Amino acid sequence: VSSESSSRAITLDLKNFVMTPATRKREVRLSELKDYFSDPEAADKILSSGRDPVVYEYYEYVVEESAGHLSLGLTIIYPGKVGKEYFMTRGHFHLKPAAEFYYGIRGRGMLLIQSEDGRVEYVELRPGVIGYVPPGWGHRTINTGRAMFVFFFAYPSDAGHDYGIVKEKGFAKIVIEEKGRPKVVDNPKYTSSTI
Amino acid sequence: VSSESSSRAITLDLKNFVMTPATRKREVRLSELKDYFSDPEAADKILSSGRDPVVYEYYEYVVEESAGHLSLGLTIIYPGKVGKEYFMTRGHFHLKPAAEFYYGIRGRGMLLIQSEDGRVEYVELRPGVIGYVPPGWGHRTINTGRAMFVFFFAYPSDAGHDYGIVKEKGFAKIVIEEKGRPKVVDNPKYTSSTI
Repeated sequence: VSSESSSRAITLDLKNFVMTPATRKREVRLSELKDYFSDPEAADKILSSGRDPVVYEYYEYVVEESAGHLSLGLTIIYPGKVGKEYFMTRGHFHLKPAAEFYYGIRGRGMLLIQSEDGRVEYVELRPGVIGYVPPGWGHRTINTGRAMFVFFFAYPSDAGHDYGIVKEKGFAKIVIEEKGRPKVVDNPKYTSSTI
Repeated sequence: VSSESSSRAITLDLKNFVMTPATRKREVRLSELKDYFSDPEAADKILSSGRDPVVYEYYEYVVEESAGHLSLGLTIIYPGKVGKEYFMTRGHFHLKPAAEFYYGIRGRGMLLIQSEDGRVEYVELRPGVIGYVPPGWGHRTINTGRAMFVFFFAYPSDAGHDYGIVKEKGFAKIVIEEKGRPKVVDNPKYTSSTI
């Protein structure tokens, strides 16, 4: 009865950035994300050189996709840019109004959040800083540094994911490098039309 | 519109173990916890010497106690014992079936969880290890080391807290030091009667 159960313990290897156990592990390469960047031609240029870099990878541990449970994960965004725009996650909204948070472990990055009516806010993340995504807000994370950006995340397991809105409309703001520093600017590709 | 909002960023000071902002900060001293230990006479002995040590303290950040939100916090359990039993948190059940997790930041400890029908499991926590409390299970954390045990926690904000079950029945197991090492043993004070 009173034994340690491995399913109750999830270990983050804080040197090699591996999460164990994980119910999902995934690498997302540039070819899959191309259309999410504001300058797909810059993406094509990288891809046509024969390279298809991993933009980010993540581990996730989900006990059960049902109410009351929490899903946990670890994301590594590699350093890099497509044109001026930093490497980033695809980003998503939840199907239900459910919060999420991002806890910076290593490197520097940004959490971009967007309300359903298009308001954008951002949080600069570094080790020890947690960015909070309120229920109903879409979210994307961006590596604004020159090293790996690693963070831990959690959200209610019944939240669901909607990637379609981001694919169709994008986020209203993008994060680019200007004079060697991150800058949040309007997304030239953003369409504010209702879906 | 596009400015950094402090309410979206919560900072854990990983040297001094302070969380900013926090909507609640609390210190829990031995006098308040006396009856939760299996040896209240050992507690009385400490208290009658004029000392009333802080057993643990925590910070919490709650945006809103409603469905979809997540509550975050930081707990510091100080090293110490009452008789053979290690310093620990009071422990609680949630009013709704809602998970919680504990992410070890510094020191060593244990997460004890108990199902409604009295089954007990435990997870040894250290930096980088996350202990998962399934919905419906009560939980308590214990400092089994000689230094501060510090961890981060999160749970659904509408979970609610029930401290009464623990006060009336305790947990079925306690964690004591035996030959210099932590050991999980039956709680002599535990009553398995239904409430």
